[in-house]
Amino acid sequence: MAALRCLPGVGPKSAQRMAYHLLQRDQTGAGRLSSALRGALDRIRHCERCNSFSEAALCELCASPRRDGALLCVVESPGDLLMVEQTQSYRGLYFVLLGVLSPLDGIGPKEIHLDRLLKRATDGTVREVVLATNFTAEGEATAHYISELLTARNLQVTRIARGLPVGGELDHVDAGTLAQAVLERRAV
Amino acid sequence: MAALRCLPGVGPKSAQRMAYHLLQRDQTGAGRLSSALRGALDRIRHCERCNSFSEAALCELCASPRRDGALLCVVESPGDLLMVEQTQSYRGLYFVLLGVLSPLDGIGPKEIHLDRLLKRATDGTVREVVLATNFTAEGEATAHYISELLTARNLQVTRIARGLPVGGELDHVDAGTLAQAVLERRAV
Repeated sequence: MAALRCLPGVGPKSAQRMAYHLLQRDQTGAGRLSSALRGALDRIRHCERCNSFSEAALCELCASPRRDGALLCVVESPGDLLMVEQTQSYRGLYFVLLGVLSPLDGIGPKEIHLDRLLKRATDGTVREVVLATNFTAEGEATAHYISELLTARNLQVTRIARGLPVGGELDHVDAGTLAQAVLERRAV
Repeated sequence: MAALRCLPGVGPKSAQRMAYHLLQRDQTGAGRLSSALRGALDRIRHCERCNSFSEAALCELCASPRRDGALLCVVESPGDLLMVEQTQSYRGLYFVLLGVLSPLDGIGPKEIHLDRLLKRATDGTVREVVLATNFTAEGEATAHYISELLTARNLQVTRIARGLPVGGELDHVDAGTLAQAVLERRAV
């Protein structure tokens, strides 16, 4: 039970229910989970190029010849990479920061691998860097810092759009979002 | 009680509670509400220029010399106009459609006053028309129809932005919205 508490969203009650369920009704499942965790810990590492999770030195995306090497999307975490992939709207490659700038927590440019990002973005293949960090204070500060860094190297830097959600109505969004949607209006 | 049911979101229970409250505890309030409704019905009409609610022939916005007459924002309803005003991010004028195109409900270009919008947008003062209809199917179809109409007259037509909300994180938005945010990314 104590070990199960490491799962996100699992409190003492859930941990107890899970433990009894596994032991009483699904020992096969428990065995499979145990080996899966062990296997993942043993085999999964970070891709040398994009920092995402990978079993090989290069992840499947970085190794794929079908992706557009001229586009490089910067995200905070491997989970965010997966979110962008699931939209099927992006055919380029990624760079995962594994964090965001957060000086108060001691997380500076070095901790989020900005030296490696700079090297990667200026390797001659990348033409556009798409900043897809979150629109939180830290995510915005990180995007700003990276854009200063890269535009100085004559790279095209873009930021994913802010505005109304798909299907969104004006009287269901907050004033801040609507203000951004008006300020960042697009030519039709 | 039956009369109170005309208020949005008020069911039989609420209507009953309201009726007893007004009669037992707040007869002054009930009187004020009655006169306010009567006064509003008698005095409030649609602005001749923008269709929004107004007591005069021209509403306060249309009559104001401090607004930028080169910008015309098209919204579906007077409520949407208020939403955009509250963002304090827009200093131009408005045109309220009082509806959206909805052929199945018999609402065509005439019902939403597109002939008057065309006249207004081509009166010589307007340089940019900002389409701020909702991102629903009808709102999008209406925006598309209007943009075809106006770009043919060499007017600059823009659409408020779609994308992530202010403060939004990638793993809290739907895939459709994230896909739009990537497709409509902006230069930094």
